Amino acid sequence: MNFSSKLIEQAVEAFATLPGIGRKTALRLTLHLVGKDLENTEQFSEAILNMRRNIQHCSICHNLSDEAICNVCADKRRDRSLICVVESIRDVMAIEDTGQYRGLYHVLGGLINPLEGVGPGELTIDSLLQRATEAETQEIILAISPTIEGDTTMFYITKKLKDSGVGVSSIARGVSFGGELEYADEVTLGRSIVARIPYKLNND
Amino acid sequence: MNFSSKLIEQAVEAFATLPGIGRKTALRLTLHLVGKDLENTEQFSEAILNMRRNIQHCSICHNLSDEAICNVCADKRRDRSLICVVESIRDVMAIEDTGQYRGLYHVLGGLINPLEGVGPGELTIDSLLQRATEAETQEIILAISPTIEGDTTMFYITKKLKDSGVGVSSIARGVSFGGELEYADEVTLGRSIVARIPYKLNND
Repeated sequence: MNFSSKLIEQAVEAFATLPGIGRKTALRLTLHLVGKDLENTEQFSEAILNMRRNIQHCSICHNLSDEAICNVCADKRRDRSLICVVESIRDVMAIEDTGQYRGLYHVLGGLINPLEGVGPGELTIDSLLQRATEAETQEIILAISPTIEGDTTMFYITKKLKDSGVGVSSIARGVSFGGELEYADEVTLGRSIVARIPYKLNND
Repeated sequence: MNFSSKLIEQAVEAFATLPGIGRKTALRLTLHLVGKDLENTEQFSEAILNMRRNIQHCSICHNLSDEAICNVCADKRRDRSLICVVESIRDVMAIEDTGQYRGLYHVLGGLINPLEGVGPGELTIDSLLQRATEAETQEIILAISPTIEGDTTMFYITKKLKDSGVGVSSIARGVSFGGELEYADEVTLGRSIVARIPYKLNND
């Protein structure tokens, strides 16, 4: 690309450092900002800079937080006996969106991946084991993707918690609710038959 | 989306104001910045803010420029008898990338579009007509897309320039060089037959 302006070029390069944004898209974003008021760009820039300057990791669950303790951990109405272990803040948001879970979280910050140099020490597993020893903790729910890295991480955590006395569970996996059997992938359908559960009548 | 952090939410909202960026992508961009150093976000923010604060429109050709006069207009080696009229800075960049054109440009800033309330007065057409009266200007090349708005704009400019004495041309359109006839779209192929040109031997 042949930029007639250094300023435009620098802004395009800045946008193009973001994941999934190539130089053509970066140029479109830059020209969009040029077409708007200066105030608009100042607000955009301020929101991002302010976020990056002030964002913290919750000292209890390691989720991203505005304060030293996040608003889930600080919420007295949450069930403190349950800790749901997830990989990242995205998973926390997805579970919160369901409105079905009222316990606490623990954000690992990644999964064990020896090939990428991520061992248990790079994650917040020690802090999870510490939380598991607290009297109020009764159950740890693993909500981690069943990939090779996810399985390794779940295996490691479960092994470390074996003698702690807290229950360890994993979220249910199977054919989606409302999903047609013929459209379910083979692995999911196959496993959901192997891992079948007793059928209960609603008024049991 | 249920954000556990106001700061993250504000950054996501800021990214999501950009064209083509939804909230899921905005969250990915935000988390990318969280995963990098603060310095990284400061540089990103600075490049964009600096661009928006200092970018100008060239007082001659209306292209985006770092100075009051852009580096194409200021370049003494460019052929000042030719003015290529384009819709936006993107077209200038595309033509500059070819390395085939050594004249000047004129950026309209849009096309005549009565349905969207864009009349000739909203574009830089008056300034173009003014430039056409200058002694050094000999030819005006219209490099505008042949859409309804583009055709209207070209028609308007050509009509206004009728008595000015400068030549008005349009870029050549037809089947791409190297393009297979069978893959050319019908309109292009049909028009390229109607608008055929005398075949010249290279050593003519």
